[in-house]
Amino acid sequence: MFENVKNRRSVRRYQVREIAPLLLNDLLEASFRASTLGGMQLYSVVVTRDAEMKEKLSPAHFNQPMVKSAPVVLTFCADFHRFSLWCEQRKATPGYDNLMSFLNASMDTLLVAQTFCTLAEEVGLGICYLGTTTYNPQMIIEALELPKLVFPITTITVGYPAEMPEQVDRLPLEAAVHLERYHDYTPADIDRLYAYKESLPESKGFVSENRKETLAQVFTDVRYTKKDNEFMSENLLKVLREQGFLR
Amino acid sequence: MFENVKNRRSVRRYQVREIAPLLLNDLLEASFRASTLGGMQLYSVVVTRDAEMKEKLSPAHFNQPMVKSAPVVLTFCADFHRFSLWCEQRKATPGYDNLMSFLNASMDTLLVAQTFCTLAEEVGLGICYLGTTTYNPQMIIEALELPKLVFPITTITVGYPAEMPEQVDRLPLEAAVHLERYHDYTPADIDRLYAYKESLPESKGFVSENRKETLAQVFTDVRYTKKDNEFMSENLLKVLREQGFLR
Repeated sequence: MFENVKNRRSVRRYQVREIAPLLLNDLLEASFRASTLGGMQLYSVVVTRDAEMKEKLSPAHFNQPMVKSAPVVLTFCADFHRFSLWCEQRKATPGYDNLMSFLNASMDTLLVAQTFCTLAEEVGLGICYLGTTTYNPQMIIEALELPKLVFPITTITVGYPAEMPEQVDRLPLEAAVHLERYHDYTPADIDRLYAYKESLPESKGFVSENRKETLAQVFTDVRYTKKDNEFMSENLLKVLREQGFLR
Repeated sequence: MFENVKNRRSVRRYQVREIAPLLLNDLLEASFRASTLGGMQLYSVVVTRDAEMKEKLSPAHFNQPMVKSAPVVLTFCADFHRFSLWCEQRKATPGYDNLMSFLNASMDTLLVAQTFCTLAEEVGLGICYLGTTTYNPQMIIEALELPKLVFPITTITVGYPAEMPEQVDRLPLEAAVHLERYHDYTPADIDRLYAYKESLPESKGFVSENRKETLAQVFTDVRYTKKDNEFMSENLLKVLREQGFLR
């Protein structure tokens, strides 16, 4: 059961083969069946196929090669703009220029994005999420001409797979499931839950390549540093203000 | 194609029938295959089956009846606590007490939640999202004993359907899909895109029941008011601070 999802892996290399517009529309239309707060559909999806537009988006994603090599790049945006326009045109006063509304719209957006991915993989497409979207939102806002109350949340590159990478590891189920109450982790729990991940040859490779002592240090000192996170948090607040979601 | 998703509806009434623990685990395990930032799996799921715990959670969800009537209530939480514990135990200094990390963990969490829903519906279960989770996060944090760097993002009630509600409307596909660039909406676009929604008998019913002039006013004046959103935004900032995601 659930074989498609259980066997999935993110795909970063794609065949030179277009995705038929009808298939893409069908996937998007089905995805829009995802739950949405109050039926408001607080999202927009910008479809990038044009090579020039991919060039423009590429630096926002630190020039990860998938942006230019995927036939389709989808930028999923939280969107309270369309809904607010409707309100204004209907003698109603929208009140969605705030953080709660940003979070609500982000949730709608991510449910659609993930439904899209599950369905795309079902028909043999491969996808990869680009977490860089919220690191450089202003570059994407500019490239895609997003108005106020529209914010890029995540980006997916999509295409027919030209690779079948190894499936990456996951923690044991018990690591992330709590019955009735959150059960905090003892040091022994942490050791046990992370033992497999730490034992993997690729994990050991990351440690030695980066001249670190532990795999955790690869995360804290190289990949997801406090300094970067704090810088990006400040930037996030700034761009949320610019896009009208925070005062 | 995609018939399960295309025909889906949220289900709020459930049969008195348990969900087998093995099935639930299988669903959760498959869901954890969703993409996750850097393989960090920044989420925890709290499973509520106990009637007393449902009683405790119920007021946080404005006593929506599904919380007590569903066999299983799942609270999906953004979780940087577990990962940070691991870092600390491995001579690494975690830097995840900030807004960027909250957003990253929220995204991981929502991808898992939505994968769970798609798969659960595939095996005949019904689900309903409770948007109330982020309205009253502190009540849920208390009930589920969530430590710092853990934040409830969304809640799903799950069970075997005891109803088959009408499918709710969606905007035409073009409303939320933009080719290459965001194309802003003209007043005529807005009229056209919202015409079907406004024409529905239930929409007209909402307008007259609430003694409003337009459907949009039902949203702005009754369901999702500026005042509530601003109050909840302040609260959100406060609880983010309390949970260690904001200074």
